Amino acid sequence: MKILLFGAGRSALFFVEYILHHSTTFNWKLSIADFNFNNIDEKLKQHPNLSLVQSDINDVAKRETLITAHDMVVSLLPAHLHILIAKDCLTFNKPFANASYVTDELRSLEPELLKKNLLFAGELGLDPGIDHMSAMETIHTLQAKGAHITSFTSYTGGLIAPESDDNPWHYKISWNPRNIILAGQGIAQFKKEGRVVYVPYHQLFRNTELLNIAPYGKYEGYPNRDSLHYEELYGLGGIETLLRGTIRANGFCVAWNILIQCGYTNDTIKIDTDRFTLKEITRAFIQDEYDSLTSSKIEKLLGIKVSPKSVETLRWLRLDSNVLLNKGMLTPAQVLEYWLIDKWRLADDDKDMVIMQHKYQYTLDGIKYSMTSTLHDIGEDPHHTAMSKLVGLPLAIYVKNYLTGNIKGAGFKIPVTADFYTPILHELSSLGVKFRHVTRKK
Amino acid sequence: MKILLFGAGRSALFFVEYILHHSTTFNWKLSIADFNFNNIDEKLKQHPNLSLVQSDINDVAKRETLITAHDMVVSLLPAHLHILIAKDCLTFNKPFANASYVTDELRSLEPELLKKNLLFAGELGLDPGIDHMSAMETIHTLQAKGAHITSFTSYTGGLIAPESDDNPWHYKISWNPRNIILAGQGIAQFKKEGRVVYVPYHQLFRNTELLNIAPYGKYEGYPNRDSLHYEELYGLGGIETLLRGTIRANGFCVAWNILIQCGYTNDTIKIDTDRFTLKEITRAFIQDEYDSLTSSKIEKLLGIKVSPKSVETLRWLRLDSNVLLNKGMLTPAQVLEYWLIDKWRLADDDKDMVIMQHKYQYTLDGIKYSMTSTLHDIGEDPHHTAMSKLVGLPLAIYVKNYLTGNIKGAGFKIPVTADFYTPILHELSSLGVKFRHVTRKK
Repeated sequence: MKILLFGAGRSALFFVEYILHHSTTFNWKLSIADFNFNNIDEKLKQHPNLSLVQSDINDVAKRETLITAHDMVVSLLPAHLHILIAKDCLTFNKPFANASYVTDELRSLEPELLKKNLLFAGELGLDPGIDHMSAMETIHTLQAKGAHITSFTSYTGGLIAPESDDNPWHYKISWNPRNIILAGQGIAQFKKEGRVVYVPYHQLFRNTELLNIAPYGKYEGYPNRDSLHYEELYGLGGIETLLRGTIRANGFCVAWNILIQCGYTNDTIKIDTDRFTLKEITRAFIQDEYDSLTSSKIEKLLGIKVSPKSVETLRWLRLDSNVLLNKGMLTPAQVLEYWLIDKWRLADDDKDMVIMQHKYQYTLDGIKYSMTSTLHDIGEDPHHTAMSKLVGLPLAIYVKNYLTGNIKGAGFKIPVTADFYTPILHELSSLGVKFRHVTRKK
Repeated sequence: MKILLFGAGRSALFFVEYILHHSTTFNWKLSIADFNFNNIDEKLKQHPNLSLVQSDINDVAKRETLITAHDMVVSLLPAHLHILIAKDCLTFNKPFANASYVTDELRSLEPELLKKNLLFAGELGLDPGIDHMSAMETIHTLQAKGAHITSFTSYTGGLIAPESDDNPWHYKISWNPRNIILAGQGIAQFKKEGRVVYVPYHQLFRNTELLNIAPYGKYEGYPNRDSLHYEELYGLGGIETLLRGTIRANGFCVAWNILIQCGYTNDTIKIDTDRFTLKEITRAFIQDEYDSLTSSKIEKLLGIKVSPKSVETLRWLRLDSNVLLNKGMLTPAQVLEYWLIDKWRLADDDKDMVIMQHKYQYTLDGIKYSMTSTLHDIGEDPHHTAMSKLVGLPLAIYVKNYLTGNIKGAGFKIPVTADFYTPILHELSSLGVKFRHVTRKK
């Protein structure tokens, strides 16, 4: 069997290691197509079952030639590129898998897939991915026992391990930096005590929830964009409280909210970074000298209350550098992204950390219960990150299960049914990726 | 000469009256193409030089037939439709004019227009339109005298006449309601005392300027989206303060800001208005009973300080109606638009009001001056509005000047040069549309 992977970025490493590890047993060949392969270990590059193909995703002829020459196609490219590959896979009858959200555009391929009896699968990473699988396993188990679930909240965070935490944001970048900058834009929709709640972006980071995630510590969480459609997706019709969110270290959100409130995360206007220094750009947002910022000045300018510590946290970013970015016309969000990639870079001896926690409230035999399921993982180094592992492994395990005939089907699936989540969670558990469950009577 | 007007909406009335008034003298025939002609007086409909053509703008064949049968084409349709007509006009060599902003897409026709020696003109209404013309006449006059302009601020408002002002918003709708709801989204960019300032949407309505527009009273103004590009457009290179903005009655912005802060002006998520009542929709934003809202609850929920009077102003909108809008999936902004069109409707005996005020600071012969130019106009009735007059008349006067050979040229022009603004302002003045200038030494 020949497997083709598009994308040799951050999250490819564990996927590639897993596939190559099993390649002799199952007689697999893996090809990776990308511009560069800096994220792949030199040692791994020598693996006899691996081929690296320098290629441009937009070169249609090359893409088609590659896809037709393989038996299964996997994409770890940025989300907007999946559709190109998926359409080719449909044309050439190749199964396709990825770890990103299944957009409406991807979903629209479903009727054709069913006609061709072809299986595409998405949302096979961490979030989305392991979140679906672990939640659905619990929900199905509880419902099979006759439990009535009244509340489901679920938070996930890509964070920094305590031993590598050396900045006041308690944050470094282990995944797509653009998504970090734009996180929360739009309106968050969730359910709370039986009612729909809408929280717009500019209110989101002042409405964080304190999360006590024992034994790892206290964190804060803000709601993700759309929790409402999980009511149907997860079979939780009529549930009273339903919220999915993101975990950050305590203090992150208040400091980040300063950047949101002054407009620095805007992604629509363009600023000439060949002409204005970072300091000049920052001044246009804060209308003052960066180093003279105080809590009271920020309250006066932006109408938000922040502690002197949050001002220090903001100041640590040194957005008043006299540097000219020299990247042409950038949006404010792109300016921030460029700068934060450097400020929040994982150092050579840094380890990242992933925490996912689901919280269920349910009634069983007239008794109310509260239950938490917690996943905690620390990375090995800046390349072998927990994030890369938890995105790449479930996807790789899916590929193995599909190619060995253990997972079957047709259409565009996500892992919310037992035929998908059972084998994947089982193997993840055997590899040490497991949830800790704590149940209490209320 | 045969003139074709696309659009018989609010702003068409004065344009049509003007063209028909001059039609016998100049031997003009006017055709109006639209779905319905409710805004055109029955009496006017009998005019021998007028034809009404029921037509769908998206019917390409019909559109092309109409355009080829006329000598000049004018569009008063919603902004996004101009490009369809402008492209046809280019194909069939017909001069085109409108009263909307010249978008990048429209601007891209310029090379072809120059090749064909064909003249298109835009921004010929009030704002944009009269604002350009009046400002450029003053700027050119001052600069010709040797004055150095250090500050230019300009505010325009479509408001309600004092005698028709009977609601706490002091506002009724005299123009495109969608633009009223979405006003200010994005980032406002302007210059203040030599520095660029960016103010994002969610800060805009708490940063209003008090405007004392003698003798009409006190108003408030908020900055429009992009004032920066007027530095080059108006020939004001190096100016220290440059801001264009919108006028509202005192108290409007603080109350409107409550709706912005809670997310009600969002235009991205969709709400099922067949399923949720207005009251239920509103509750998802304010997370409380509408009638129980108080200043302190709003401060707690949204972090903004508002007076009890502003809460009353908000409450007057009765966003807690139990009505089902029954309009399918709408964005929150569309829900508001639907509701406010009714709440802020001009009654049969209502008159609207337009105010435009430019403020210049300049140095001449070593002396500092401050100068205001103010335009004030009251409508006749809910159809013959000041807004319709000040949008339709300059456009109509342009058409007359173009057809009589008084304004010539090629390319896509806007009225910032004397050949355009002199004849138009001159005739507007003779029709009573004139600015009052007050100059003071500082």
